[in-house]
Parts: sequence; structure tokens; C-alpha cells
Amino acid sequence: MREILEAVAAGELTPAEAESELAGYATTGAGRFDAARKARSGVPEAVLGSGKTVEEIADLAATAVETTGRAIVTRIDAAGAGAVRRQLAENAPKATIRWDERSNWLVATAPAFERPDVDARVGVVTAGTSDAVPAGEAAMIAAELGADVTRIDDVGVASLARTIDAVSRLREQDVLVVAAGREGALPTVVAGLVDTPVIGLPVSTGYGHGGEGEAALSGMLQSCTALSVVNVDAGFTAGTQAGLIARRVAAARGG
Amino acid sequence: MREILEAVAAGELTPAEAESELAGYATTGAGRFDAARKARSGVPEAVLGSGKTVEEIADLAATAVETTGRAIVTRIDAAGAGAVRRQLAENAPKATIRWDERSNWLVATAPAFERPDVDARVGVVTAGTSDAVPAGEAAMIAAELGADVTRIDDVGVASLARTIDAVSRLREQDVLVVAAGREGALPTVVAGLVDTPVIGLPVSTGYGHGGEGEAALSGMLQSCTALSVVNVDAGFTAGTQAGLIARRVAAARGG
Amino acid sequence: MREILEAVAAGELTPAEAESELAGYATTGAGRFDAARKARSGVPEAVLGSGKTVEEIADLAATAVETTGRAIVTRIDAAGAGAVRRQLAENAPKATIRWDERSNWLVATAPAFERPDVDARVGVVTAGTSDAVPAGEAAMIAAELGADVTRIDDVGVASLARTIDAVSRLREQDVLVVAAGREGALPTVVAGLVDTPVIGLPVSTGYGHGGEGEAALSGMLQSCTALSVVNVDAGFTAGTQAGLIARRVAAARGG
Amino acid sequence: MREILEAVAAGELTPAEAESELAGYATTGAGRFDAARKARSGVPEAVLGSGKTVEEIADLAATAVETTGRAIVTRIDAAGAGAVRRQLAENAPKATIRWDERSNWLVATAPAFERPDVDARVGVVTAGTSDAVPAGEAAMIAAELGADVTRIDDVGVASLARTIDAVSRLREQDVLVVAAGREGALPTVVAGLVDTPVIGLPVSTGYGHGGEGEAALSGMLQSCTALSVVNVDAGFTAGTQAGLIARRVAAARGG
Amino acid sequence: MREILEAVAAGELTPAEAESELAGYATTGAGRFDAARKARSGVPEAVLGSGKTVEEIADLAATAVETTGRAIVTRIDAAGAGAVRRQLAENAPKATIRWDERSNWLVATAPAFERPDVDARVGVVTAGTSDAVPAGEAAMIAAELGADVTRIDDVGVASLARTIDAVSRLREQDVLVVAAGREGALPTVVAGLVDTPVIGLPVSTGYGHGGEGEAALSGMLQSCTALSVVNVDAGFTAGTQAGLIARRVAAARGG
Amino acid sequence: MREILEAVAAGELTPAEAESELAGYATTGAGRFDAARKARSGVPEAVLGSGKTVEEIADLAATAVETTGRAIVTRIDAAGAGAVRRQLAENAPKATIRWDERSNWLVATAPAFERPDVDARVGVVTAGTSDAVPAGEAAMIAAELGADVTRIDDVGVASLARTIDAVSRLREQDVLVVAAGREGALPTVVAGLVDTPVIGLPVSTGYGHGGEGEAALSGMLQSCTALSVVNVDAGFTAGTQAGLIARRVAAARGG
Amino acid sequence: MREILEAVAAGELTPAEAESELAGYATTGAGRFDAARKARSGVPEAVLGSGKTVEEIADLAATAVETTGRAIVTRIDAAGAGAVRRQLAENAPKATIRWDERSNWLVATAPAFERPDVDARVGVVTAGTSDAVPAGEAAMIAAELGADVTRIDDVGVASLARTIDAVSRLREQDVLVVAAGREGALPTVVAGLVDTPVIGLPVSTGYGHGGEGEAALSGMLQSCTALSVVNVDAGFTAGTQAGLIARRVAAARGG
Amino acid sequence: MREILEAVAAGELTPAEAESELAGYATTGAGRFDAARKARSGVPEAVLGSGKTVEEIADLAATAVETTGRAIVTRIDAAGAGAVRRQLAENAPKATIRWDERSNWLVATAPAFERPDVDARVGVVTAGTSDAVPAGEAAMIAAELGADVTRIDDVGVASLARTIDAVSRLREQDVLVVAAGREGALPTVVAGLVDTPVIGLPVSTGYGHGGEGEAALSGMLQSCTALSVVNVDAGFTAGTQAGLIARRVAAARGG
Repeated sequence: MREILEAVAAGELTPAEAESELAGYATTGAGRFDAARKARSGVPEAVLGSGKTVEEIADLAATAVETTGRAIVTRIDAAGAGAVRRQLAENAPKATIRWDERSNWLVATAPAFERPDVDARVGVVTAGTSDAVPAGEAAMIAAELGADVTRIDDVGVASLARTIDAVSRLREQDVLVVAAGREGALPTVVAGLVDTPVIGLPVSTGYGHGGEGEAALSGMLQSCTALSVVNVDAGFTAGTQAGLIARRVAAARGG
Repeated sequence: MREILEAVAAGELTPAEAESELAGYATTGAGRFDAARKARSGVPEAVLGSGKTVEEIADLAATAVETTGRAIVTRIDAAGAGAVRRQLAENAPKATIRWDERSNWLVATAPAFERPDVDARVGVVTAGTSDAVPAGEAAMIAAELGADVTRIDDVGVASLARTIDAVSRLREQDVLVVAAGREGALPTVVAGLVDTPVIGLPVSTGYGHGGEGEAALSGMLQSCTALSVVNVDAGFTAGTQAGLIARRVAAARGG
Repeated sequence: MREILEAVAAGELTPAEAESELAGYATTGAGRFDAARKARSGVPEAVLGSGKTVEEIADLAATAVETTGRAIVTRIDAAGAGAVRRQLAENAPKATIRWDERSNWLVATAPAFERPDVDARVGVVTAGTSDAVPAGEAAMIAAELGADVTRIDDVGVASLARTIDAVSRLREQDVLVVAAGREGALPTVVAGLVDTPVIGLPVSTGYGHGGEGEAALSGMLQSCTALSVVNVDAGFTAGTQAGLIARRVAAARGG
Repeated sequence: MREILEAVAAGELTPAEAESELAGYATTGAGRFDAARKARSGVPEAVLGSGKTVEEIADLAATAVETTGRAIVTRIDAAGAGAVRRQLAENAPKATIRWDERSNWLVATAPAFERPDVDARVGVVTAGTSDAVPAGEAAMIAAELGADVTRIDDVGVASLARTIDAVSRLREQDVLVVAAGREGALPTVVAGLVDTPVIGLPVSTGYGHGGEGEAALSGMLQSCTALSVVNVDAGFTAGTQAGLIARRVAAARGG
Repeated sequence: MREILEAVAAGELTPAEAESELAGYATTGAGRFDAARKARSGVPEAVLGSGKTVEEIADLAATAVETTGRAIVTRIDAAGAGAVRRQLAENAPKATIRWDERSNWLVATAPAFERPDVDARVGVVTAGTSDAVPAGEAAMIAAELGADVTRIDDVGVASLARTIDAVSRLREQDVLVVAAGREGALPTVVAGLVDTPVIGLPVSTGYGHGGEGEAALSGMLQSCTALSVVNVDAGFTAGTQAGLIARRVAAARGG
Repeated sequence: MREILEAVAAGELTPAEAESELAGYATTGAGRFDAARKARSGVPEAVLGSGKTVEEIADLAATAVETTGRAIVTRIDAAGAGAVRRQLAENAPKATIRWDERSNWLVATAPAFERPDVDARVGVVTAGTSDAVPAGEAAMIAAELGADVTRIDDVGVASLARTIDAVSRLREQDVLVVAAGREGALPTVVAGLVDTPVIGLPVSTGYGHGGEGEAALSGMLQSCTALSVVNVDAGFTAGTQAGLIARRVAAARGG
Repeated sequence: MREILEAVAAGELTPAEAESELAGYATTGAGRFDAARKARSGVPEAVLGSGKTVEEIADLAATAVETTGRAIVTRIDAAGAGAVRRQLAENAPKATIRWDERSNWLVATAPAFERPDVDARVGVVTAGTSDAVPAGEAAMIAAELGADVTRIDDVGVASLARTIDAVSRLREQDVLVVAAGREGALPTVVAGLVDTPVIGLPVSTGYGHGGEGEAALSGMLQSCTALSVVNVDAGFTAGTQAGLIARRVAAARGG
Repeated sequence: MREILEAVAAGELTPAEAESELAGYATTGAGRFDAARKARSGVPEAVLGSGKTVEEIADLAATAVETTGRAIVTRIDAAGAGAVRRQLAENAPKATIRWDERSNWLVATAPAFERPDVDARVGVVTAGTSDAVPAGEAAMIAAELGADVTRIDDVGVASLARTIDAVSRLREQDVLVVAAGREGALPTVVAGLVDTPVIGLPVSTGYGHGGEGEAALSGMLQSCTALSVVNVDAGFTAGTQAGLIARRVAAARGG
């Protein structure tokens, strides 16, 4: 830091340049810093729909579209999606809205918004329909980060043939998010078949002892393969991590 | 019960016959009842070596050989095995001693002892060497109950090919005990490949969150296949249950 | 595997035969594989009603009747049962429907469907009415697997006489599923009285510390008898395991 | 309190009498208060041997004999007992020492000490030898409180006949302490057979899930009978509670 | 048992006498055995209202009044109480009904029913209004068992003066049930002031870590005084245990 | 205590003076003692709205205003606030009512009530809007205790710049309450930047493993800085503790 | 930050002054920053003896004396203290060493070192000797921070009179650290008697359920009084927090 | 699969080629398959030293050097390292041995062994010396996988300046492993400053509630940034995952 300050004293740097130089860790206005960070990392913020009224969701979504060109909402049901539609009909009538009924997310974009496009592949793998919500969130946010996302569904450990038949598709990806509830063994089995980095995503299925995803989480943490893991149902986190890896890979590709 | 008592009053049953009739749930001497039960079920009692002095183990083993013709000791190390040898050299010099150094069990039998022989197959499956102690206990007690026991080792979920190559051997068994530590996925994978009853045996490997076999246990309890499970490291319980099933199967075979 | 491939190359096996030979662990279509497995193991899939809309349940049930001749639904209430009835009135008007109001399961069968019939006895034991749902599921699926199922109810450890009076019925079975909530001691007491394999089924009664079936589960796992155990309320798993054992026994009987 | 103070002001009570009147909740010297309480309740303090050096134990025991006529030490091994013997040989050469090797307690009494004698019966029940330490503590302290203590051992739920054969002895007691490890079902079974108050004493046997006495504790807390419970291995607490009940009963008997 | 059978054979006992002799552990009809037990122990069964429909509650209550002269229902709200009233207006119009709105219990008695009356005092102590339901259950069942019950309310550890002012009333009881939620310290403080047996009753107040009564339960189990404890909110169990102790004391009094 | 009693006997103290002297730990009427304590410590009691009917809340609030001049209610929604308004319109029409919709608390004061005013600063810090309820409670009760309260919001660890920009405001406070959910790292980061005492307030945000505030609580307890901590969501406790510290500081300032 | 940078550009601040101005959150050398912070907050770092070899402890202590004039070591036994003595005999022969054998801490100071002296009182309260280590750490570090520390020992909730007799000493303190193991009720009882801020310090005594200090911790977190809490055995944290509060109070006193 | 089989039948594929084609999921010999996988993924197996005798470790290491050219051992102390040295002096006298005393790992390589070299950067970040073992394992295995590894140490959240000073080095990496014990906040703080993928590595420091790394693990799982996480102390897993990501990045770079 002393060097920068001395450069300022010597007139070699303007105060603004010095501030920019230090921008990673200091700024005058918190909001401005966040904007910088967003531009830099491309990780958009999302609105978590659960626990909010439909009015609150609609307001936040409209603001996001107006300020950043895109609103991402997770855990939003039909009523919430309707409220967002009505609000945007007023605030941003030309916005495009996609709502995924099964995975409960909504993405609204202003006409001018251009989603990043990175040259790297993210695979999102599930064992069954009960993994739909977190897997859908992971796929959505990875795609919004620009990755080329492939869904590989119904790959269950209790029916090994399905897993084996998916091997070539699994190997084509640059990074895999593998969702699993109950005993959560699928990420271990997949990581034993590929040399792609695998992010385990435990899902809150199951009941009784180890239910609510706890068995899946602890099983993935105990896996003898090289898994990394996110929290139960944290599809957004898994997809973001996968997206960040995809961006590194794409950057290396010169894309 | 009234009927039995009336038959006694009528002289149709002697008191001894009546007692025998009621033997399932009543007896004058606890020891005698236990003898009856052992004769009936063939489940021998075992000496748990851990937590006992070598003298205590040796005494108990000698008594068991003298009274029932056989001593079964689990969790016994070289020192314990040596003490048993010395004690039996005095008390029962003609006894045969088998000690499994890896699985830490010892079985001593009097020359006249005839192990039951039942016509049914028990498979004991492991993923690796860390499952040796509980899997070895399971195999030993199932064999002592008379079953035809096969060990199927090094079948790991992180190397599916090994599992697949073992399928035909797995399918030949009448009942399977499948041991697994860490994430404990092997019993689920096996039960998806066979229609044999599978008993999951969680092993206390692993560390950190879900360590000490807790992840394996909860994963097996959450399995979407039809597993039944025993406690962590409870190889003796798993092997006994498998042995009881084998005896039912063998009885049905007329064996 | 090399042998099979060489036989294909030599023209000794057609590709179709080879595929069939490998069917345990490989197939082109996941669905087909599952059909093969069902034919082999006789374990039918069930629809879990809880967490689904009545329309979803009705659709899945109708499809199951049409494709496999039988639909099994668990955790289904009166509204769900009504929806299934209406749907089948359209899709499969000749189907037979059994709905167990107390245990919340429904089985619908096409006229041509023939339930397997295996010559072996499964006993399902309960301590009281609060065990009805999981015990009922266990009894239903064991029966659907073809076993001869006997219910032995109201056998509580706090009233030993009831347990003792049930001993002879308990001993007649080839395998027992014993359900218990609260402290879960019944399977231990039963397993001390018989030499039949006992599967403990913890029930989610109880409150406070150890409630929701956790005390029952841990007690059964700690039992000094040779119990195997399933997860809390996992009646379907316990009944399937019992059914698989019954099939092994029956196969040995030549049935 | 105002009444007492007014009586003091009026000279109707001396300050000493007033203090004595308030003695339940106030005193100038903590030690004196404790003496009063001990005299009143007869619950002697005990020295917990574990975690102390043999010198510390010996010192504390000698002090206890000198000041109260009796020293009670729990969790004391042979080395500790030897140290106490040597110390008392100096300080109180006429003291009588009883050391229970199996239950690890020691009681030393001065010649003049008279143990209270109350006319009521406490039964201490165990399932096996692994319950020896806490059950032995319970029996010892109940006896030191003056109760007439009976040991009823080897009463296991896995061998119901033993339990049933003990029924009449169980019914003769005024209060029962029932120790059990593993699944901890014995207190429930006993309480279903008698109308005596039963105090459940969980023992830290068992391993894996629910081990260290946790399954036994939660099972006793979930019991459908009217048990009260103490903590794992808290034999001293259970025996004291039983002794207090015995004293109430004896007081009612006019003893 | 052999002696009894020989006496039957010798004609010294009729079968009926023998059955009566063995009645503690054997009977032909489970129902009959229970009747015997109820007569012997005086512990009436109660209907747990929660989880039942109002119709079910009303049916069970009516049956209980008709067969035993008394119905005890816990966890019953105004709707349930109304349903019982209507049902009894039909089935047992002369029955007396008491409903405690605050503690949610109901007791209905036939005109001929005579509650037992035992000469012993049970004190039920609370810290505040949030303890009302379990404390009320404890007081009710102890009274139904015949004890002379005193409520001692609003005795909180955060206001020691209240505790101290209650000391003399606390000391007058033969046995105390002390309810406490949150940190659950009251039973420890009370047991330090009296030499009466104290049964700790943890209450499911509190939130966050240790909430739902878990902190209170573990605190009571750790108490350095001689408490015994029941499960969280298990007022019925605590009151029954207190009632059984009271009956022993009263029996000793010749009452 | 003897000294006081002797002074009474000597006529140097009236009984009333003596009682007052002992008032910290003894009194005839519990209510009176509490009044003394409130006057002394200035910690007012609050009504916890959750779990009470709106009528109960309104009654308690009206009583508090009438007897102490102020009612404090936490966890109260719009319906509850309306009920209080209507009740006070009758009982205390001149009372002033403040209701914080976001933090769900209500304070009503009689015209004559004078809030204490102490010369010390309490800072209440949050990371985001999800901390509003407990942080709002902390700020409210600290203010009602008389402290000068500053809110410092939106200081998140994932955006260090915001934290750094807040440093000077953080350093101006005499004591800080720092609320944080999820991983709960904010109090640690803040305590590393200031030498003010910091009270960590974990918030029940988060889901899956460590959710409901458990991760935040355990993280704060593990902090390598000198935090003290309150339970999850215990804003009232944190604010009261901060207020007591502020009062000590102010007292030292001569205020 | 912009303002500072502009002042540098304008020559109003030298780079060194600017760096100093920003010193709270930026510096070129990590070590230097820490020195600044130590000077500012006066919280000295301590060496945690457990888990280190005696050589490592001695080295670290010698370095601390040489660089800051004082070494503070916790959890150090006789062997460690001897090693420190020998090391300092070489490196700093004039240093003064205090070792507290019972609480296992050691403080060594260079002759020139002057401990701060702040005009505020910290009370450290214990229930018994088992609280010695963490309470001793709390007292030591509070004293090293300059506070006037008073130990108030043997204040147990099971002997209320002792607590009451300590009231006046408790009230004289500016802040209290109250240590308690087992059920951990003492801080609640104390906080109900005083209006001083109380920091609860749970101690890892106790066994079985809630042992290792968990019951004490959860009880303190559930306390209905305004406690703040530190982790189990975290005496150093509690004492530091108390010392920081004392410093604020003393600063307000003008000391 | 059918296509492959038909190609074999048509003579288009030799059986060996077909087997090779299917090699991902089928092979005749388990060992051969593993070899294939190792060649493919480059993830070498490691010997876990803890729980093995020094002879076992030395044997396994020698075998690994002979068969794969490299032995990797973790959790190995000086005694173990000495044994490996002696064994290799016999078996492979030209092998090179590196032993990291602080992180307890050993790598031995045959002269001909060429470590892969991939063009991507892995940063391994720690807060302090207590993170040495797992962080050292992570760095070692990432380097053995060929990555360019940088250690960034002493970056603690309680001293933000250190973190900020490390920002530019953090941003230069392609992937970061961030180790942290106690409250585990460092990965969250780091992930808020960079757009690099961050893998959180919880370390088993800490004591009391949330000790043994549990607080760190749950805090990382709750992080509001996009962390993925491995189990407590699972440095080998974290480093392998980082290495796999680095390999993907390098492959994209054409390296």
C-alpha cells in the first residue's frame, strides 16, 4: 500500500487512479464496489422467493431488470410468477420472462440484456424427479453465467445400467454437478467413472434417521473419491461454482 | 395356559411335560432355559474380548469349551489368543484352536464337537481391507451356524467394474452381508443388481462429519433398495441374522 | 466379458444373445432393463403418495396398471383413493381396487394380473394401533410379493403376558417383521423367544428426547439379539426384505 | 419473613433463634449450613475418585471420616483403595474399610459411626455383569442411607424367563432401581410387571449409533410405563433417589 | 413353576387357582390380564387426545366410563371436550365431567365410581404459566391415583425470593414433581432445599440451541442433586410415578 | 445475616428496614420483590407475543401500562398491534404506541412515563434484511434501557469493503451487538477491527446442515476473537446485556 | 478513502501519515499491523500450551517476553513451566515468572514491563473446584488487561445459602464471569440477583447425556435472564470480554 | 452396447477392441481396469499412514514405487518415514524421498518417474499454523497432479489487513483451496474478494460446542458465497479436486 500512496504523493497516480488500484479492498461507496465486483465476476445476485410476499418478489425483480438488465428469482411458485409478470407489464413491458414451473425459478431479461457466453460445458446429473428443484437451479445459474449446460437425468445407483449408459455423456463435460437424495451415492459412483471435477449436491429427500438430506450430505463428505460438496438443496451454490470453473476453463480456451 | 393346567389336573400331562410345553416362556432355572433355547436355535453365545483381561477371556473360553464343546471369542488380539492357548493346554489339551489374526476372532472346539452343517449359502462382501474385522466376524459366526460362507472382497463402488464382475458370484448366494465404511454405498449398489436379501453392515471407517460409520449407517437406512441394516461394526449380529436366514432356507430344502 | 465378446466374434452368440447374457449390468434402454429386473426379482415399484397431487397419483397408478398389471400406492388418503378410482374407471374399468384406509395403501390390479404365490410365511407384529401405517405397508408388500402374511397385533412389552401368549404364532413364521415405536423394545423381546429371523421396524411415535422413532431405531440397533433393522417408518422396505427372504425359503421348498 | 423479623424486634425470638428459623435458606457460614442440611436430609456427600490423584482421594477420605464419621468414595481402583488404607492407618487406625472391587466404591467408617437404619426395601436390578459399576453404586448409597437393599441380577429382556422368575422378588420391594445398557428395555419390562416405583438407570454399554448409553437413556425416557430416569451411569443419583423414597416410606411406617 | 404344576397334579391347586397364582406373567386372555393389573396397581389408562379425531376421542372416553367407571383424556381442546360431552349425554347421561381448559385434560366419572384416596402428599411445582399443560397433567393423574395434590406455582430461579418463600410448603410434601422449561434449573434448586424425593419434569419451552426442552432435560440429568427425570412434557409419566410413590408411603402409613 | 437480626433485636433497625436490607434475597410477597428488583435494575419485563392470542397480548399490555407505565411486546404482528390499540383506547386512552412492523415489536407508554436516559452508546450491526427481527429487538430494548442506540446495517463479510467503511462508526460505540445468520462470521470480523466489547447474535437464517442458526451460533462460539454470544434469535437478551453494560459505562461517566 | 488520497496528492498528508490514517484496515506488513492493534486494544496474545511440545512452548514464551515484555501461556503443566523457566534463565534471566499450578497458566514479564491498570472491577465466580482451570484463565487475563479482579468461589445452586451470602460481593463488581459445569444454573441464579452484566462460562464437567459442558452451555443460552455466553471452557475468551468491558467502564471513569 | 456387439459380430471390431471400447465400465481383471483409470485420470492412490504399522507403510510404499514409479503417503511421522527409507534402501536404492515433517506426508519416486506438468495454478490458503497438515496434503497432491501450487499462509479473518494484502496473489490462481478451523470464515471472506472457484477445507481445530471442525464445516456449507466444501481435514480430497480443475484449465490452454 505504501507504494501506491507514494505514487500519489509523487503525482504519478491521481487519487482516482489510486482508488481504482485499491478497488479490490476499498471504496467510498459500498454500492459502487458491488457494481465493480459484479462486472468483474459476472456472478449475478438472485432473489430468494421463499419467505417473501409476492409483492416483495415482484418489486425486487422489477428493480433488478431495470438496474442490471436481468432478474433471477429462485423458489418462486405460480402466484409469484404471476405477480412478477404483472409488475413487469408495467415497469418493463418489453422484458422477456422464463419461468420453470418444475424447478421454481424465473429469469426476466430486458431486451438489451446479453447473457455471457463461455465456451465450456457443465453437466447437471440427477437420479430422479425428486431432485428437480435444486438441479434445476444449478442448471439455470450455470447457464446464466454463460456455460453450455447439459442435463443428464434418471441416473440412479440402484440401476447401474443407467449410470453406465450415461458414461460417455458424463465424460464430455468440463465439470459435473451431481444431485442425489436419500443415501446420496450417485456422485461417488460418477466420480469413479470420470476424471472430470464433480460437485456433489445433496437433496433433502429421505425421512427418518439421516433424512432431510443429512445422509446424502455426510455420505458425499465421506466419499473416497475426490468430490467437493455443497449444502443440502444448495443448487444455486453448486451451479455458481460450476459456472466459475467453466469460466476459468473457457478463459484458458481463449473464450 | 388354562388348557395345559387342566390337562395336568386331569393327569393327562405330567408336571414335567407341562413345564416342557411351557418351556418357551417359563422355567425354574434360568440356566436350564438358556440351554433349551440354544439347543433350539443353535445360536451360540460369544465372548466379547475387548474390555476384558486376557485371564478373563481365557477362563471364559475354557468354560465354554468344557460345557458346550465350543468357544467363540471376538475382538481378541495375539496376547489374548496366547492366553487362551495356554489355558486350554491345561483344561482341554485336545481342543482345536483357530485364530484369525486379521479379523480378531478365535474359535476353539473340543474333539467331539460337531459343527452344524446347513445347506444354504451366505455371501460376505467387502469393499476393502478396512472392513476386515466386522466382515470376518460375520463370516465366522455364519459358518459356525453351519452355513456355506463365501467371501467376496474388494468390491468398491468407486470402481464399478469390480462390482459388475462380481455379479454372478453375488447372485449365487441365498443371503448377502455387505460391509462398507465411509459413504456406505456398496450395499445399495449390490441390492440393485441381485434379488437376494441383503443385510447392510456399516463399518466405522471415515473421519470428520459422518465419521465413525455414522454416514454409512444413515446412508444404508436411506437406501432406496430393500436393505436391512445392523449397527456400526456389528458383524456378529449381521452374520447371525444371515445364519438364521440360511437355516430357514436349508430347513425348507429339507436340509 | 472377453469370453462373451469372443463368442460373438466367433458367431457362437448373436449380438442379441450377448446383450441378454450381459443383461445384469448393461442394456441399451434403461426402461427395458428395469422390466428385465422386475421379471427377475418380482419386486414391484410402488408410488409414494405423500408429496404428490391426487392427479399425479392417479396418472401414475393408471400407467402402472396398464403396463405391469398392478399399481401399488403407499401413503394415500381418501381423496387420493377417490382420484385413482375415477381415473381407473376411465382407463381400466375392469381393474380391481383395494384401499386400506387405516394403513393408507391402495393396490389396483388388472383382471389378467396374477399375483405370485410363494410357499413361505411372513409374520408382521405390532405393539399397538399407532404402528398401523408402517406395519400395514410391510404386510401389503410382503403379500404382493407372494408371501403368506399373518398379522400378530397388540403384543406389547409393557404387558408381557400378551407377548408370551403369541409365542406359538410367532414361531410358525419363516421371517418376522416386528414394528415398535417409543422405546422399541418389542423386536428384542420377540427375538429372544424365537429362532426366526427378525427384522425390526421402528415407528415414529414418541415425543421429546428420542422421539420421532429415534429411540426405537437406536434401541433396535443396540439390541443384544440378532436383529436387522430398517429406517423409521420404512414398512415398505421391511416388508420387501421379508418378502425376498420368503421367496428364498419358498424356492428352497421347491415352490 | 416479616413475621420473624417482628418477633425479633418484639424480643420474642433471639437473633440466634431467628437465624435457626430461617436456616433453610440463610446462614452466616456456608459450612455450618451444610452441616445442618446433612443432619436434616441424611444424604452424605461422596468423593468422586475419577480425575483425582490417589493422594487427593486419601486426604479427602481421611477428612470425611474425621468430621462426619464416614467416607464414601466412588470410582476408586485398587491403587486408590490402597492409598486410603495407608492414610487411615495413620489418621484413623480404628476405622473400618469396605472396598468393592467390582463396583469400585469404598466406604470407611469410624468406630463410633452408626449407619441409619430405615424400614424400607430398595431393589437394585441388573441385566448382566456390565451393569456392575453403576448398579453397585446405587446399592451402596441406598444402603448407606439406611435402606434394606436387595440385588436382583441377570434379569435380561432377551431371556424373558429370567425376568418372569424374578417377579415375586421384584414385587417385594418398596422402590426399584433397574440398570440396563444397550437398548435399555429392562426397566420398561419390569415396570409392566410390578406396581412399585421404578427408577431407570441407563448404563454406558453399547457401541456405534446410540452407544455409550444414549440408546438406553432415550429408550427409558420414551417408555410407555411410568419410569423416572437418571443420567447414563448415574448409579449414585439413582440410589440416592431410591434411598430418599425409602426414607419417606419408612417414616410413614413409623420407622 | 414346577412346584405349582406339581401342586396341580396333586390336586392341591385347581387349575383356576394355579392360573391365578401365575397371573403376574401368564393368562389366557390379554384383556383379562390387564384388568387384573389395573385392579392391582390402580394405574388407569388414559386417552391421548392429540392425533385423534373428536369422534375417536368421544368413543374411547365413553367406552372407558362404561367399562371402568372413569375416562381420563389428555391433550384435549374445547372441541374435543364438547364431543365427549355430547357422546356421554347419550351413553352415560349421569356421568360427571371435569375439563381443565388450561392443562387440556378431561376426566369423566360414572356416578358409582369412587376414586381411591391415599394418605400421602404430592407437590407439583412450576416456574410459570408456560408449564401449565405438563404440570396440570401431573397433578391430575396423581390426584386420580388418590394422592393429596398441592400446586406450588410461580417459583422461578431468576427470582430466588419466590423459591425461598415456598420452602415450607415444599417440605410438607411426600414427593415433588418440579416442572421447568428453558434452562430447567428449578428442580436442582428445589432439591437443594428439601429432603423430599424430587422428579424433574422438563417442559418444551425455549428456542434456538437447546430449545424444545432439550436444555432443560440435559440440565436435569446433569444435576448434582439426586433428581430423577422424565421426558420432555411427560407430565403424565411424572404424575404417575409420584402417585406410585405416594401409594407406597400411604400403604406404609397403614392407609 | 446474624448482624441484621441483632440490629433488629437491638432496635437499631425496624423490621421493615431489616426486610428492605435483605430485599435482594428475601421478601414476603413475590410481586413486591419483583417491583423492588425492577426499580433497582431497570430491566423491564416484556410480553412475548408469539404463542398468545391477540386478546391475551392486549390484556397483558394494558396491565403493564397501568402498573409500570410501559408495555413492551415482542413478536407481535399487525393483528396483535391492532388488538393492543383497541384495548388501550379503552384502558389508557392517552398512552403513546409505537409499533415496528419490520421487527415486530410494540412499546406503549403512559403519558407520565419517563424512559431512563443513560450516557452510553450501543451499536447494533446487521449483515442484511434477514436480521431485522432480532436486531430490531436488541435495538429497542437497549433504547428502552436508556442507551443511545445506533443501527449499522448491511455490513456483510462477503463484501469486505462495506465492513471496512463502517469501521469508524463501529469504533464510536461503547458496546456492539452484531447480528449474523448463515455462517455467522460478521461478529468475528468486526471484533478483529475494534476494541469494543462485541456480543454476537446468531440469526436463524440458513437451511440444510447447520441451518436454523446453528452454524452461526457454533461459529461465534468458536471465534478466535473475544466474543460473547447469546442464543439464536435472542435479540432481546443481547440488547438487554448491551444495555446493562451501557448503564455501567454511563454510571462511571457520572451519568 | 478518496479524501485521504486527495490529501496525499495535495501534500497535506505524507504517505506515512496516510498509511497510519488507514491503519485500522491496511498495512504493508502483517506483523506491524498486529503490533498497532495490540497497542490500541491492549489485548495480548496468549500461547495455548496444550498440543505443543515443552520446547515449542518455551520458545514461544521467550519470544513473547523479548518482543512484548510479557508472555502468557495457558494449559501448561509442571513440565512446561519448568521448560519455560530454563529457557528464560538463558534468554531473559531477569524476567519474573508466575505459574498457577491449579489453573495451569503461566505469565512471565520482563522487568520493564508495566501491566495496565484500569479502574474497574471484574468478579470471577465458581461453584466448585472443578471450575478451577477456566475460571483461573478468566481471572488471569482480566487482570493482565488491568482490571481489579475478585474471585468468588464455592457459590453453588444446590446450596442456595452460599449464593445468597455472596450477593453483596457480587453486586460490587462492574462485570461478572460466572463459571459452572454440570447443569450450569449458577449464572442464571446470579443474574437474577444483580444488575451487573453476567458472562456465563460453561465448564466441561459432567458425563453421559449433556456431558462435556453441553448441558451447561445450552442451559446458559436458554436462560431467561440477560446472560451472554462463551464456549465450553473458554475462560480466556470470557476473561478478555470482561476485561474489555472493564476498560470501557474505566475509560468512562476517566481512568 | 448393441452397436458394439454388432460390430464385433460383423468383424469390424476385435474382441479386444470391443473390450477396450467398453473399458470405462467393464473389464476382466479389476487390477487392469484400475491401471486404465489411473492412466486416464492421473489421480494416483495414496497410502494413509495413520492406523498402519511402520512395516505395513514401508511395504506399501515400496510396492507403489516399484509398480507405478511413485509412492504417496499421508499422515506419516518420523518413525514411519525412517521405515520407508530403510525399505527403499533395499528395494529401490535410487529412489528419491521427500518427507514433509510439518504436514506429515512423504513422496518417493523412482529415477525414471516423470511427474505430470500442467499449466494451471492452484493456491492453497491458510489462516495459521494449525492448518498445516491438511493444507500441506492439499498442496502436495495438487502438485503431484502436476499443478503449479502457491502457498498463501497466515491470512486470518480476525486481522483483515492480512487478507486484503493477499488479494492480488489470490486473484492470480486458477482455483483456490482455503483451509480454516475454529469458525471457518476465511473461505467466505476470500470468495467475496475473488472470482476464482474456492474449495473450503475445514480443519479440526476448536473445542467445546462446534469443535473438531464441525463449526467450520457447517459455516462453510452455510456460506452466502459460492463455496464448495470437503470434509473436515480432508486436504487430500480438496487438493485432488483442485488438481482436477487445474488439469481441465490446462487442457483448455492446450497444455
